[in-house]
Amino acid sequence: MAPPGGSGVTAASLASFFAERRSIEQVELGDELAPRFDHDGLLPAIVVDAKSHEILMLGYMNAEALARTLHSREAHFWSRSRQAIWRKGEHSGFTQTVERILVDDDQDALVLHVRVNGPGSCHVGFRSCFYREIDMGTVKGADPVRVRQIETDLAFDAAAIYAGLPNPTRI
Amino acid sequence: MAPPGGSGVTAASLASFFAERRSIEQVELGDELAPRFDHDGLLPAIVVDAKSHEILMLGYMNAEALARTLHSREAHFWSRSRQAIWRKGEHSGFTQTVERILVDDDQDALVLHVRVNGPGSCHVGFRSCFYREIDMGTVKGADPVRVRQIETDLAFDAAAIYAGLPNPTRI
Repeated sequence: MAPPGGSGVTAASLASFFAERRSIEQVELGDELAPRFDHDGLLPAIVVDAKSHEILMLGYMNAEALARTLHSREAHFWSRSRQAIWRKGEHSGFTQTVERILVDDDQDALVLHVRVNGPGSCHVGFRSCFYREIDMGTVKGADPVRVRQIETDLAFDAAAIYAGLPNPTRI
Repeated sequence: MAPPGGSGVTAASLASFFAERRSIEQVELGDELAPRFDHDGLLPAIVVDAKSHEILMLGYMNAEALARTLHSREAHFWSRSRQAIWRKGEHSGFTQTVERILVDDDQDALVLHVRVNGPGSCHVGFRSCFYREIDMGTVKGADPVRVRQIETDLAFDAAAIYAGLPNPTRI
């Protein structure tokens, strides 16, 4: 991977940006950022609203997306549908300013505390991507399980904001 | 996958438990639970404390783990290190009672609101797996990035609780 210039991220800086993973003690209790990317080169990043702590979305980052996020303080992900670096809000303008990033015990997952510069973070038009809840009352034997909406009002007009762009949801 | 009996989950019930994914409209705006498991048969499940909404961990579920969770209301995951169904708390006793499950727009990620039946959810001994934060002040050019602990007191003695078990962290 040879990231293009911009945001201070170069191929050289990327190589030395993260520590090598050497031991369980280093990874779990050390003070080095030594993330573990999966076999696709990705790790999940949970995005929460910095003020309300509401979970807004879950995205995936490769090393370049994480480095760009750290440098720019703007959330960058790897778009699995487009197979490209994705600066959140590049189309909608609803960017995410990153205030804090938490790391988990084995450093293969992140939590981003962000300020959303716009009405929402979900491509369907809701504030949060988690706008539905499983109806636990429908969990019975072999019957199909149902979901119900918990966020009912659209935060923005997704058809207008993303006009001409393909829907990222994959079947 | 032929799940063993128990918790009401059988191979037959598992097959009819989740809806087939037929269209973007159905997946994004319908009332059927039609989860998308990745090429390893997994989806990520963010676990939050039902009361404080603090993020405790991120686990992965296969279809059987999700079905068992829905039936038993106890969090089950797929252990990627052990390659086996993992009832959270089966060793420590610190099980997670599931109060709510949220689903995201394309149904490939979940949020579990849980009540933890014990002092913590992290195998290192902390309350949350996200006990460290990236020190944004150390993000400079090509220097290694540092992390610092934000949860400093251990919630339980992990060495005693998990005595004799291998550490799940992979290098």
